[in-house]
Amino acid sequence: MTITPKPTQTIPDTGIYERRESIVRSYARSMPRQFHRAENVWMHDNQGGRYLDFLSGCSTLNYGHNHPILKQALLDYIMADGITHGLDLHTDAKAAFLESFEEVILQPRKLNYRAMFTGPTGTNAVEAAIKLARKITGREMVIAFTNGFHGMTLGALACTGNAAKRGGAGVPLSHVSHEPYDGYHGPDVDTADLLEQRLSDPSSGLDAPAAILVETVQGEGGLNAASPAWLRKIAAIAKRHGALLIVDDIQAGCGRTGGFFSFEDMGFTPDIVTLAKSLSGMGLPFALTLFRAELDQWSPGEHNGTFRGNNHAFVTATAALRHFWSNDSFAADVRRRGALLESRLDKMAREHGLTTRGRGMMRGIDVGSGEIASVITAACFARGLIIETSGPRDEIVKVLAPLIIDDAVLSAGLDILETSVRETLAASFGVAAE
Amino acid sequence: MTITPKPTQTIPDTGIYERRESIVRSYARSMPRQFHRAENVWMHDNQGGRYLDFLSGCSTLNYGHNHPILKQALLDYIMADGITHGLDLHTDAKAAFLESFEEVILQPRKLNYRAMFTGPTGTNAVEAAIKLARKITGREMVIAFTNGFHGMTLGALACTGNAAKRGGAGVPLSHVSHEPYDGYHGPDVDTADLLEQRLSDPSSGLDAPAAILVETVQGEGGLNAASPAWLRKIAAIAKRHGALLIVDDIQAGCGRTGGFFSFEDMGFTPDIVTLAKSLSGMGLPFALTLFRAELDQWSPGEHNGTFRGNNHAFVTATAALRHFWSNDSFAADVRRRGALLESRLDKMAREHGLTTRGRGMMRGIDVGSGEIASVITAACFARGLIIETSGPRDEIVKVLAPLIIDDAVLSAGLDILETSVRETLAASFGVAAE
Amino acid sequence: MTITPKPTQTIPDTGIYERRESIVRSYARSMPRQFHRAENVWMHDNQGGRYLDFLSGCSTLNYGHNHPILKQALLDYIMADGITHGLDLHTDAKAAFLESFEEVILQPRKLNYRAMFTGPTGTNAVEAAIKLARKITGREMVIAFTNGFHGMTLGALACTGNAAKRGGAGVPLSHVSHEPYDGYHGPDVDTADLLEQRLSDPSSGLDAPAAILVETVQGEGGLNAASPAWLRKIAAIAKRHGALLIVDDIQAGCGRTGGFFSFEDMGFTPDIVTLAKSLSGMGLPFALTLFRAELDQWSPGEHNGTFRGNNHAFVTATAALRHFWSNDSFAADVRRRGALLESRLDKMAREHGLTTRGRGMMRGIDVGSGEIASVITAACFARGLIIETSGPRDEIVKVLAPLIIDDAVLSAGLDILETSVRETLAASFGVAAE
Amino acid sequence: MTITPKPTQTIPDTGIYERRESIVRSYARSMPRQFHRAENVWMHDNQGGRYLDFLSGCSTLNYGHNHPILKQALLDYIMADGITHGLDLHTDAKAAFLESFEEVILQPRKLNYRAMFTGPTGTNAVEAAIKLARKITGREMVIAFTNGFHGMTLGALACTGNAAKRGGAGVPLSHVSHEPYDGYHGPDVDTADLLEQRLSDPSSGLDAPAAILVETVQGEGGLNAASPAWLRKIAAIAKRHGALLIVDDIQAGCGRTGGFFSFEDMGFTPDIVTLAKSLSGMGLPFALTLFRAELDQWSPGEHNGTFRGNNHAFVTATAALRHFWSNDSFAADVRRRGALLESRLDKMAREHGLTTRGRGMMRGIDVGSGEIASVITAACFARGLIIETSGPRDEIVKVLAPLIIDDAVLSAGLDILETSVRETLAASFGVAAE
Repeated sequence: MTITPKPTQTIPDTGIYERRESIVRSYARSMPRQFHRAENVWMHDNQGGRYLDFLSGCSTLNYGHNHPILKQALLDYIMADGITHGLDLHTDAKAAFLESFEEVILQPRKLNYRAMFTGPTGTNAVEAAIKLARKITGREMVIAFTNGFHGMTLGALACTGNAAKRGGAGVPLSHVSHEPYDGYHGPDVDTADLLEQRLSDPSSGLDAPAAILVETVQGEGGLNAASPAWLRKIAAIAKRHGALLIVDDIQAGCGRTGGFFSFEDMGFTPDIVTLAKSLSGMGLPFALTLFRAELDQWSPGEHNGTFRGNNHAFVTATAALRHFWSNDSFAADVRRRGALLESRLDKMAREHGLTTRGRGMMRGIDVGSGEIASVITAACFARGLIIETSGPRDEIVKVLAPLIIDDAVLSAGLDILETSVRETLAASFGVAAE
Repeated sequence: MTITPKPTQTIPDTGIYERRESIVRSYARSMPRQFHRAENVWMHDNQGGRYLDFLSGCSTLNYGHNHPILKQALLDYIMADGITHGLDLHTDAKAAFLESFEEVILQPRKLNYRAMFTGPTGTNAVEAAIKLARKITGREMVIAFTNGFHGMTLGALACTGNAAKRGGAGVPLSHVSHEPYDGYHGPDVDTADLLEQRLSDPSSGLDAPAAILVETVQGEGGLNAASPAWLRKIAAIAKRHGALLIVDDIQAGCGRTGGFFSFEDMGFTPDIVTLAKSLSGMGLPFALTLFRAELDQWSPGEHNGTFRGNNHAFVTATAALRHFWSNDSFAADVRRRGALLESRLDKMAREHGLTTRGRGMMRGIDVGSGEIASVITAACFARGLIIETSGPRDEIVKVLAPLIIDDAVLSAGLDILETSVRETLAASFGVAAE
Repeated sequence: MTITPKPTQTIPDTGIYERRESIVRSYARSMPRQFHRAENVWMHDNQGGRYLDFLSGCSTLNYGHNHPILKQALLDYIMADGITHGLDLHTDAKAAFLESFEEVILQPRKLNYRAMFTGPTGTNAVEAAIKLARKITGREMVIAFTNGFHGMTLGALACTGNAAKRGGAGVPLSHVSHEPYDGYHGPDVDTADLLEQRLSDPSSGLDAPAAILVETVQGEGGLNAASPAWLRKIAAIAKRHGALLIVDDIQAGCGRTGGFFSFEDMGFTPDIVTLAKSLSGMGLPFALTLFRAELDQWSPGEHNGTFRGNNHAFVTATAALRHFWSNDSFAADVRRRGALLESRLDKMAREHGLTTRGRGMMRGIDVGSGEIASVITAACFARGLIIETSGPRDEIVKVLAPLIIDDAVLSAGLDILETSVRETLAASFGVAAE
Repeated sequence: MTITPKPTQTIPDTGIYERRESIVRSYARSMPRQFHRAENVWMHDNQGGRYLDFLSGCSTLNYGHNHPILKQALLDYIMADGITHGLDLHTDAKAAFLESFEEVILQPRKLNYRAMFTGPTGTNAVEAAIKLARKITGREMVIAFTNGFHGMTLGALACTGNAAKRGGAGVPLSHVSHEPYDGYHGPDVDTADLLEQRLSDPSSGLDAPAAILVETVQGEGGLNAASPAWLRKIAAIAKRHGALLIVDDIQAGCGRTGGFFSFEDMGFTPDIVTLAKSLSGMGLPFALTLFRAELDQWSPGEHNGTFRGNNHAFVTATAALRHFWSNDSFAADVRRRGALLESRLDKMAREHGLTTRGRGMMRGIDVGSGEIASVITAACFARGLIIETSGPRDEIVKVLAPLIIDDAVLSAGLDILETSVRETLAASFGVAAE
């Protein structure tokens, strides 16, 4: 098996992008290649280069690129003229998805959720979740957290912490209060207690919330992982104050932290869960908002969307559920690889006096500044490793390798990272982080 | 060629939906079958039934279901392990799409637009459009129109007129003023003049707008088609008052009214255009926000989204652009079929003293009440014709047949509609419309 | 009796204002004198000048300056150590006011209103009114009108049409829709019908309103007077759509149009009425929000304010009610003087091909531009007449003389206006209005 | 000198209030007497009763009721037909006020403020302050604090913490974030540090603020007094993050804490200060927004109000400034009385294991629950002492005696309080606080 990248150094002609694609594009700037095909953990550019993917479409490709089983299921479906676009009509593909989701995911976890097929992007799923919470509680205010990331449409963007993204709204973002996440104010301040105090005080100015919206690990916000104890407290606070607990599992779910959901075995059950990214298994647009059956109080069509019936995604999602989640072996693999990743990152951190973050296969290393982090990721890319940053100042180099990655390949990629970190920090020796 | 439907009358087991799918589903209620496959204008249920599709995924399937050329392009791409999910990385598929869009669509129409790949749903494209308008103008207020429909996420929903959808927001929808659409107040009131008067009055209370957001034909709002003269006036008003003109061409674009854009040959050029629905050609999630190159003032990543690089959609969209839009023959076909449709609907309307609405292949008949309309569409469905309603009270029976429909099949479908209308109105004779 | 002004031409030292008063001041700019004392219709500057007051504190001094009966009542009260400030405690002065208001105003008009003593400014009364309407209906949206003026605090400012005032908010002003006032779109468009159509349309985008907030004559907005028929239609629309009708009678009430309320004898009863300005009779801060007893659903202290018990104002208001409103003679005087004013203004308008506006003793002449209007008012001031402008572009010269003005003095003031108009328009002959 | 109250026990007829005054009234419920006259620290009911006033119109009557010097100045002014209502025209009374304010207050404190005469209520002054801050910074968000109280109009109400008051808005209150006040999270958490951390984090979700709005002592929120060190930190945070520091000194200013402003000698200068309540000295409606001269960037008339020229208040305010603030003796008296008050309250607190709050002559005792507090204040009232509660649950019995109170009378009042506390706590022995 191939375990090393083979990057090209030639930057292709990008005239068509400069002429016709908005300058809003971002990843293409730090990875200026034109990609041609991809399989497993590898992306190939149109000049013969091969790159190891430690970004995985921001956790959208947990099962790697074009997984053969998913790919074959999709090919079979298309060749048989399966329904491609079905609005919210019943289709074989949707039935199969719902059945496998019930059997493989919900029943073993004793979760009595209903699934709402929203428009197939994470932000649509979040919008549906907060709408439902507001509708049910009759309240407007949603509590989100520092460094949370929930999407770009106005309702979800109001829940997102990032100032640059928020600034793009062009209108004030209202009806959301951002509270400090677990550990935000250091180890001596229990931020759940701060929240409880303000919610219990009729004169705190914090309005009674419709929902508390939380990521168990903040993928974009810097790989901060909340402790189970803190999450349980947050769940209890939500319940005590009549708010619904929404876990945004768009990035941390679908196996990224080991279990299918990132909150499994933590001793609480969210009222609402959002899923997207790796849900289709193959990178196709697909999003779900799950909620307790008692909360299913929508009117027909009250929230809809043209592409809520993306049947291709149902097909690959079903194949992924059956293949990866019918027993615990995949989850066990992920946990083992997560431990390997943790150990390697900790070693790097110790070497340089840095700290690490994260959980499962969703981890990063805080290199002190976005400037340093970008030098490191560029050095990685020059060596054929696709890797990106995270965090409020992009100061976390994050590893989001496909979950199916072979251990040897994972190690090879981490070797590149280790080398690039060492080289960069040596070069910037004596230079204070920003 | 088959020209008649063969509906089944057996309603399949829907237990899995009742257990696991949110009651927010809507179309599945009036068309209680489970669909198995589809091609061209036909949908097949899992019991052998065959249905003629006059809904076309709400104009998402303008080229019919699983068009063989698009399907083959997609199969080839998948088999070759083409990039499926690419964030906003450069890929062969994206380059090919941008090149064909430039060559086939933009250049012949002398449009110097840039394309922003938003999350692949129409509402995401609308959110990006109004964000950009607000950012550029430094203003908050967007003018939308009565009966406009622009999406379900909070920013787009604020622009949507429908009270039931708006009510789902759970928060007040702000920063948008809904002005009367062309003809809203009857033939004697020029609603563009009303708007101009208020925008010119420094004490009208109507804040200076960032954008005017308009559909040339209101697909969900009742097939109201604005006149070119009114649209030109609106374009001039936008310009005069420093607002950007956004044409939401999500439903009316991609050939539905004849041209690729619904505003072609009308004597004005929108500043921003949103596309989605039929853009991929095959029903895959894909949305674009187009704008004049001078307006491309985004910061990198300021508005992003996980699935903005849905490469499967790029592949089918490219195939669709090349196949249908390289010359004028398809557009001419659509115009001819649109005239046929118009003539048949007008005949039905005259027979019953009703009125028709719409333009091109996007037309409907006002049957006076949603109650009557739903009886008609149910009667159609019982005869194997999939057709839906539109309008503020669902009182318009709308025909959104695939644009590639054979004239004989179109006639056969319209025969079913004609029969169902006649039968329903006869039955409700003497019963006042609601 | 003195009937002519005696203006001074010397502008006094204004150093203290320049050093210490915010530049937000406005009237002092066009009337640069320092005033020393005032009585009846006369203001005296500190250099011996005497000015005829056709501004009346923007209708706050309907009974003139320092009316001897009101003044004596206040002196007696103060000398006896009557309660000055009483929060909302029961006091003799408040009881006397409520009793006289009940006896002199409410009972003869068969109005079963309760009085809410808000903070003593008009904007506070309006804020209380819209809060109550929102509370009772559970809706957010308030319908206000083009050119309406309701105050400067955020809730009231959102209802105000003037763009310069709105721009001062620094935040978007939400939850209010400004609809065209009576006659706004010319004589051929019934703007009440436009409103009814949109409110009856479930897809118009105009949310169901909590209240319709209207002035019967728009004092700041240009002296536009709504017809009784239009107001009745608006009242019926409010009722039909479950909204409360709020008449903002702050400027037009307290006798300005003849009756105590401006809506008397028009065939409808507002749900809520706001009063301020001339309510105390002597210019002291005082505001009331009146509402039908059934609407009195406040919780104790839910809306409060430190100065809601301004007992000095209760004393003068009581004296004013008893003196001016115990019988119809004052109202008859006002109507007679209003007719005189109308006739003189119409004559001036005819002479110059202009139009007039208004009702009762609240009238103006449209001189075509704010520039011309300001030349006219300056010319008046130079002749000793205090007079101001109104309207979206300040193009209306408005006459708000004290209601108690002697007919001969009124005529003398109008002579000055007539001369100033003639002189100004002659000078600007050939100069196009802006 | 009289030092003991003589309460009546007969509740007067309140029919007129029940018929005609809104049930929103509050203080009249716990003090059901009809007051007739008042002087110094005494209020007299219409049945001959005499009450010692420890409420002082919520700190509006710092110089007592109807102070003879102020009263005489007002009588002289009225008798001479001084201008009563002057919009924002220059008047002798306004000039005299500005001159004395400059000479007696600003110059000795080296404060270069300009004065904006807003509508004469505290909430109007706060609205003007936050408007100006938003206008100058171009930002929307205002930081206010837990338990802050700033007024009832929508802009100020959004800054107020109290949930019952907020609930009256009927619309979501936006553009304000309530942060924990000094000591809110206990002695171990420096809440200024928490704020600094979030404002410095570009991904905290806390938008860049236009202003930080703070009371140095929270009059309504429970007599919480911020430490000078914390306030200096807040001032520094405001400066560092480009926000304006607004001190709402409406209740704590005008001598209540010793100095004219409550922030004197603390080592920072607010950008904007709001004053109202005791500003007129006699309880007349008067409010000011002060700001650094460089911030005076209003357009003429951009924020106005009918009663911004309440000349009676200018007259009494001028007399009060000259009489009480020309030298330091009054301030010294207040400080001495404040110490006396502190010592007595501390003694009571120690006796019962309670805590005290506050600063200067603005202090309270936390009796554990609103229920107990209301029994205590009722017991006081039955003994002729007017006293009220404060705090999020009304659990603080607050002493807001006139600042001019004779020491012996203050002691007599505190004796009544002491007795009532002791009696109440004895009676509720064994009864858990709510």
